[in-house]
Amino acid sequence: MVEPTSPLPGLVQDDNVLHQNVLHRISEELATRFQGVFTPETVERYVFESYTGLARSAKIRAHLPAITSRFAKDRLTALAQSKGLAAKDVPEVLFVCVHNAGRSQMAAALLAHHAQGRIHVRSAGSMPIEHLEPSAVAAMQEIGLGLEEEFPKPLTDDVVRAADVVVTMGCGDSCPVYAGKRYLDWHLEDPAGKTVEQARAIRDDLDTRIRGLLNDILDR
Amino acid sequence: MVEPTSPLPGLVQDDNVLHQNVLHRISEELATRFQGVFTPETVERYVFESYTGLARSAKIRAHLPAITSRFAKDRLTALAQSKGLAAKDVPEVLFVCVHNAGRSQMAAALLAHHAQGRIHVRSAGSMPIEHLEPSAVAAMQEIGLGLEEEFPKPLTDDVVRAADVVVTMGCGDSCPVYAGKRYLDWHLEDPAGKTVEQARAIRDDLDTRIRGLLNDILDR
Repeated sequence: MVEPTSPLPGLVQDDNVLHQNVLHRISEELATRFQGVFTPETVERYVFESYTGLARSAKIRAHLPAITSRFAKDRLTALAQSKGLAAKDVPEVLFVCVHNAGRSQMAAALLAHHAQGRIHVRSAGSMPIEHLEPSAVAAMQEIGLGLEEEFPKPLTDDVVRAADVVVTMGCGDSCPVYAGKRYLDWHLEDPAGKTVEQARAIRDDLDTRIRGLLNDILDR
Repeated sequence: MVEPTSPLPGLVQDDNVLHQNVLHRISEELATRFQGVFTPETVERYVFESYTGLARSAKIRAHLPAITSRFAKDRLTALAQSKGLAAKDVPEVLFVCVHNAGRSQMAAALLAHHAQGRIHVRSAGSMPIEHLEPSAVAAMQEIGLGLEEEFPKPLTDDVVRAADVVVTMGCGDSCPVYAGKRYLDWHLEDPAGKTVEQARAIRDDLDTRIRGLLNDILDR
């Protein structure tokens, strides 16, 4: 009736133990970086919850510790910003779509490109999937914006709180609405399962909106 | 180019402001309950991140604050247990499936029923959906186990850490593997989109496994 105590393949178990050692090291590094801002316990919680949040949709586990490190660091930075414990030198814009695999990734890359440091950009998804949409990656590559380093991330409260502008695309009202922020809801095609040609049209539609948004934010 | 600053319907915005007031009240209540264990800041983070985690897959927002309160309280309890800051009177069993809408919910209800307080049970999903599977709810109702109060919850690190036994069902290796826990991987049908008759067969298959697991845990 009761199956063996460790039915998971040995490699997975080994991977996990290895990951935990790496996660503890990441926690220590981030605890040093956020010293005086967050306790080591808070940092460790963020690292391990970020890992579990990413692991839920990740099929390839090899890169998990590396992206966990980036995700946790970004979330802790966002939290520190929203609490006034870290400087916010430029406006923060958050793009949210469903999978954080196409639209929100393209939008974030376009705005970061056009803003040239005058705006900081984040993206997230209400139901993140395993990897970015190949058509979206290809269409962005054509204009010289590589998305190879990007990965789908679940929407978290901290990044919403840190944002000045939140742009939602197709994710319904899954994003918390806080007073004092500007919310935009953009309706545009999802590149999921589309051809590169179709993704190109979405990219260009996004580019026009992003240029308008950039001017609008910088004019304020 | 740039759309109106508040394109979300007024009701949603009102709902959100209302929810935030309720979430602050929930945070205060839980901070009192966990006084001396966790700081009010940690409790508030758990409440708001739990809300955002649930909101990502919830289409009906009316019940969100109530289930956030239960989810955050359970997660904080799990965290306190795993850190040795709260008593763990009985073994903890965690069931994980993909949607936390069928298999893991049925398994949790069956084990809680048979264990009669001798085991504490939790459940979670790697990709939780909006609501429980109607066929699973109906099949459980037939044997007098109501699932009306249950809701799909995302898998978090805290509940894995608190568990003595983790049973995974169809969720791949999305669940972190920690040393010193017992992991079981059960292969059985998913009641998603199935008839009540089919869900009944899954329920009976689960019931046999659950009785075996219960005896096995209590015999140790």
